[in-house]
Amino acid sequence: MTAADRAESTALLTDHYELTMLAGALRNGTAERRCVFELFARRLPNGRRYGVVAGIGRLLDAIEKFRFNDAEIHRLRDSGVVDEDTLGWLADYRFGGDILGYPEGELYFPGSPVLTVTSGFGEGVLLETLALSILNHDCAVASAAARMVSAANGRGLIEMGTRRTHEEAAVAAARCAYLAGFTATSNLEAGRRYGIPTAGTCAHAFTLLHDSEEDAFRAQVEALGVHTTLLVDTYDITKGIKTAVEVAGSELGAVRIDSGDLGVLARQARTQLDELGAPATRIVVSGDLDEYAIAALRAEPVDAYGVGTSLVTGSGAPTAGMVYKLVEVEGRPVAKRSSHKESRGGQKAALRRHKPTGTATEEVVYRLAGEQPERLDGDVELQIPLVRAGQRAGDLPTLEDGRERLRQALVSVPWEGLALSQGESAIRTSFLP
Amino acid sequence: MTAADRAESTALLTDHYELTMLAGALRNGTAERRCVFELFARRLPNGRRYGVVAGIGRLLDAIEKFRFNDAEIHRLRDSGVVDEDTLGWLADYRFGGDILGYPEGELYFPGSPVLTVTSGFGEGVLLETLALSILNHDCAVASAAARMVSAANGRGLIEMGTRRTHEEAAVAAARCAYLAGFTATSNLEAGRRYGIPTAGTCAHAFTLLHDSEEDAFRAQVEALGVHTTLLVDTYDITKGIKTAVEVAGSELGAVRIDSGDLGVLARQARTQLDELGAPATRIVVSGDLDEYAIAALRAEPVDAYGVGTSLVTGSGAPTAGMVYKLVEVEGRPVAKRSSHKESRGGQKAALRRHKPTGTATEEVVYRLAGEQPERLDGDVELQIPLVRAGQRAGDLPTLEDGRERLRQALVSVPWEGLALSQGESAIRTSFLP
Repeated sequence: MTAADRAESTALLTDHYELTMLAGALRNGTAERRCVFELFARRLPNGRRYGVVAGIGRLLDAIEKFRFNDAEIHRLRDSGVVDEDTLGWLADYRFGGDILGYPEGELYFPGSPVLTVTSGFGEGVLLETLALSILNHDCAVASAAARMVSAANGRGLIEMGTRRTHEEAAVAAARCAYLAGFTATSNLEAGRRYGIPTAGTCAHAFTLLHDSEEDAFRAQVEALGVHTTLLVDTYDITKGIKTAVEVAGSELGAVRIDSGDLGVLARQARTQLDELGAPATRIVVSGDLDEYAIAALRAEPVDAYGVGTSLVTGSGAPTAGMVYKLVEVEGRPVAKRSSHKESRGGQKAALRRHKPTGTATEEVVYRLAGEQPERLDGDVELQIPLVRAGQRAGDLPTLEDGRERLRQALVSVPWEGLALSQGESAIRTSFLP
Repeated sequence: MTAADRAESTALLTDHYELTMLAGALRNGTAERRCVFELFARRLPNGRRYGVVAGIGRLLDAIEKFRFNDAEIHRLRDSGVVDEDTLGWLADYRFGGDILGYPEGELYFPGSPVLTVTSGFGEGVLLETLALSILNHDCAVASAAARMVSAANGRGLIEMGTRRTHEEAAVAAARCAYLAGFTATSNLEAGRRYGIPTAGTCAHAFTLLHDSEEDAFRAQVEALGVHTTLLVDTYDITKGIKTAVEVAGSELGAVRIDSGDLGVLARQARTQLDELGAPATRIVVSGDLDEYAIAALRAEPVDAYGVGTSLVTGSGAPTAGMVYKLVEVEGRPVAKRSSHKESRGGQKAALRRHKPTGTATEEVVYRLAGEQPERLDGDVELQIPLVRAGQRAGDLPTLEDGRERLRQALVSVPWEGLALSQGESAIRTSFLP
């Protein structure tokens, strides 16, 4: 293991109490009890009609790097978090259990068993915080992104929210947006890490830097070619568009408008571009767009949308509200009982029912040790093996596979489930006893 | 430079267009024009009355690691983002300019020049995305955290939101919470990276793992001592508290309640603990707390709060809405002019006016080349040197200094500025011509 690998340990990206629970369980011999943990959402946020599973690929990478190397052990010893016996156990820690889960791009609904971790208590409890961090963030962003893709109705979407969120969250957000069907991202690290197409040309600063807008456009066209996108709203938009076509000619790739009433301005720009003999020049709009604003622009001559803040903040729901609950110990179902937040004990699986037309009708969640659902035509089992005895399962879906899976899944949603307004889950979840 | 350092380059945590702007500017000789960029918020989110500056320390670290090493250059070449001349310039890139800014823990208001970057255009434009990512995230979390600290009115606050946000954003959020006055964090990496106290004991899973609650409490007390915090709401809370005191004795550190009507339950728990002869046992509550819920519990016998989701998501404002604008080129003020989002050109500084009692009255933002404010008793200049000619300024405030600065700054806010309700900025910002 190289220094770089060690530096990348994910083992301390976790809550203090996961380690103190381990210490307690090691002391009285319960740490090896066979446990099943389930990760799920009790409800969808804000009247959303579906959630999108995202982050599974990142989670599997993070689990492989979940190692207590010397640096982590020293830190835990110095800060007195756990005793020496526990430190010894941690130094040898490798997750050796099994993980089943929904593949990326699959939809989820309240109670869907998005992830099922089976292992000794200590092994599995240590992954709780990390699994929740990754899935709560990524599912929140992907779920918002999918609504924007629906609203854009086939037009291009460029993710440009990096500056509105934590610098590493931004990389993950770009991945979620691509999973959901965005065309490209502005984030260069996401391009490197995940092979996502990146895009971008110039900001207002580039125009302001120059002695005139014409100088700026000329510099950009010389550097990036006539197929570039010129930002035309630094001064007067009509003059900006005229200058843009004068400088780049009718081959100009696109103009971008980043302020004002985007619908009105897009219409004016389209008319002006056509009159200037640039009918193939596209119109890109940006500036505080969310799924509602995107939908509101459907009737306008907009060719692509740049989306920032609302994407990376989950458009009002910045976290997916998933929980990671112990549901089974040595084959015995367990559940918290003191409040309305009751959980259903026992390991569960799920299948989704579909009409012959392919429309989804129901999510059936059933206990492996309980009543089994009748199997009907159109049923799809939702969990797949992700990790077997600590090893990543073979042939896992790629990011591109997830993108295609979501595309198909959204086709299967009943039409009212794609409405942007607040409402019930697109399909109901049935829990078998 | 070691492999680990290289792996940590922050240079690709940026937007594609920062590099294409650089390429255009290099091509026509404008990349070296002396520029001033200003980072500020046009407004505070959601009727907030003040913002808290956070992330400066993280930003200075990130700028030091902003290097285009071989791996970054190869990636940019392979993906065709910029031309060879630009790659050559990037390979030698070191930020060599000056940065002034508000220190961490200082308050900011609409238009406050939180950061001022002076350098050649290329040098400064490259930092835009990274600076915004860090400050937009950290200021959003710290601003929410400060309201929670105010609401807690001296009682302890434990940050436990790691599982609700991106795994690296969580580490930064823990730092922001501590800056704002939280007592501790659950996040172990924040403990390692920033020296913040970490805390945590057990979750419901630990109780469920055991054959009885008593077994679980006994295991925890054996591992963590009688001064630990026992989570008493897995089954029946009254029985849980009884068992807790039976197992740990009257020296029990605390009980935690994580569900239900926390006010009612805290009162019942206090009465019961006193009757059981454990008057020194503290009561910790958690579960969907935000600043309003914390304030609502002020009259109850609560000793400490655990706060998660609302902290890491900025309690409704997950991003601070800061922008990074080019305001001056070769001594000439510049500003976008096409819309209502107008910026004020020219490099600016700011001072805060105070009454003789120490209460802040006004934020005065003035152009270095414009009218200078009259200097009055109680005026405090707000920017400090952070970077000089590319080198971090000496004697920069520490995280602890920021914590103390914020504590004092909140004392200086007019009383209505500390109200949790939506309203105007606590003090007005005056812009001198």
